[in-house]
Amino acid sequence: MIDQLIKKIQETEAPIVVGLDPMLDYVPERLKREAFAKFGETLAGAGEAIWEFNRGIIDQIWDVVPAVKPQIAMYEQFGIPGIEAFQKTAAYAKEKGLLVIGDIKRGDIGSTSLAYAVGHLGKVKVGNREYAPFTEDFVTVNPYLGSDGIRPFLDVCKAEKKGIFVLVKTSNPSSGEFQDRQIEGRPLYEWVGEQVSRWGEELMGESYSYVGAVVGATYPEIGKSLRKLMPNTFILVPGYGAQGGNGKDLKAFFNEDGLGAIVNSSRGIIAAYRQASYASFGEEGYAGAARQAALDMKADLRQAWER
Amino acid sequence: MIDQLIKKIQETEAPIVVGLDPMLDYVPERLKREAFAKFGETLAGAGEAIWEFNRGIIDQIWDVVPAVKPQIAMYEQFGIPGIEAFQKTAAYAKEKGLLVIGDIKRGDIGSTSLAYAVGHLGKVKVGNREYAPFTEDFVTVNPYLGSDGIRPFLDVCKAEKKGIFVLVKTSNPSSGEFQDRQIEGRPLYEWVGEQVSRWGEELMGESYSYVGAVVGATYPEIGKSLRKLMPNTFILVPGYGAQGGNGKDLKAFFNEDGLGAIVNSSRGIIAAYRQASYASFGEEGYAGAARQAALDMKADLRQAWER
Repeated sequence: MIDQLIKKIQETEAPIVVGLDPMLDYVPERLKREAFAKFGETLAGAGEAIWEFNRGIIDQIWDVVPAVKPQIAMYEQFGIPGIEAFQKTAAYAKEKGLLVIGDIKRGDIGSTSLAYAVGHLGKVKVGNREYAPFTEDFVTVNPYLGSDGIRPFLDVCKAEKKGIFVLVKTSNPSSGEFQDRQIEGRPLYEWVGEQVSRWGEELMGESYSYVGAVVGATYPEIGKSLRKLMPNTFILVPGYGAQGGNGKDLKAFFNEDGLGAIVNSSRGIIAAYRQASYASFGEEGYAGAARQAALDMKADLRQAWER
Repeated sequence: MIDQLIKKIQETEAPIVVGLDPMLDYVPERLKREAFAKFGETLAGAGEAIWEFNRGIIDQIWDVVPAVKPQIAMYEQFGIPGIEAFQKTAAYAKEKGLLVIGDIKRGDIGSTSLAYAVGHLGKVKVGNREYAPFTEDFVTVNPYLGSDGIRPFLDVCKAEKKGIFVLVKTSNPSSGEFQDRQIEGRPLYEWVGEQVSRWGEELMGESYSYVGAVVGATYPEIGKSLRKLMPNTFILVPGYGAQGGNGKDLKAFFNEDGLGAIVNSSRGIIAAYRQASYASFGEEGYAGAARQAALDMKADLRQAWER
């Protein structure tokens, strides 16, 4: 799967993943009106509204980016109908040829992590039959519980040729509270990064491992040091745009081969129509604005390369 | 909510939470047959089977323990029908007067943690209406992202009078890989424990905070030191029984007042009928076996106290 991601990045020339983290606030009034007309102002109405919103975006971006990253919390907050919207979004994105990174940040003790791994990346047995409930291609995983919480994900990834991105250094302001603490003279995130690299050794694709890392765009210096520490680890980089990271800072996350990272933008793309620079698209043109914002991000990254 | 939990622990004289982590394997053949007859060997069939299994257990234990702790991964692995079973289980347990600790181990950057907090403990807005999708009383939370990932949970807990248990030292064998690493001469779990205690200061109940900690029964020495470090923090203790912790080790997790901790048992109670000592209940008597196992665990803990 990591090889497929790389191939798609090369085809689209866009190391970009679109974060499908819809808030009801972003959804144009007409879509909400239609969804509420069908289901009322209910959780089902909310699920329908964000699903239709996502569908519009996917229709406009499937040919310009390699992947989408739905953040499951934004769906889970609407209960079952929200999770249905998550599932439909993931399935539709795959139908359109996009890879799907489920931003689920799960992680637990071994037997429990296995259930998450099976549910999101693998197949679960019911009697004599097998089902793939959530069908993402990659998921994000939290490392706090150590190797035996990661192991089941590795096993399922190996069987299914899928991948994970393990949180190493997150993009939020207080990520340093624990992640930056010094252990034998080096920050915790480096110890985690080394483990990620080790976990990845048994799951190598052509040049990168199926086991990737999450490192926030908001910490480019750290990105640089982790890039060196984990040469074969693909880095998922959140925090571009709305969270404050920008194009010129991102070079540090990539290797000399121009690969090794994929940068996420959520709000900056899916709610682009609310920015002054895309206002001409109007609310109805939200998906067209998202396409343009993705193309502009691609140009921004390319410029950063050429600097 | 923490005061309510303490009141119920005192009423039942059982600082015990039953982990509702059903595997299809545990479900008696008859229940599976009935569920599959209705829905086939499908995800819906699996959801129905584990829901009926849980209902049987809840009917037998609601008057002897204060709380249940469904592990959402065991439901999520069956996709939407699994999550429906989770929701029905939580709702039914509450109907029977049990408190519900959702073992969800979520945790993300601020805006995303807010979505989880709202979905599981609070209310989400849809147009002019509000809904409580998952209605747990407490959830477990992962601290790796630091304070701003916890903040939204604190805010929702304050508004809803609900609580969280933050992972401090987990029960699994490799929990030490990161959690035990020394930072300025003290292990990471102590730094996390101190933060938990600090987060809890603004959310005090009568004698304990709404912000609790998870510390594994498998590390009693660590339980002892964390007990002292966080005197007002209620500790959720997984790992009793199947994972290796036992009654006499558990005293360390409690305060002098006999309070301060609640011990989880999952397999040891819900699959008790498969142990030699409860074999007389038979498969059909799985729920009665669970009741007896809960009563025996209560006696085991009481003995430990008297030693």
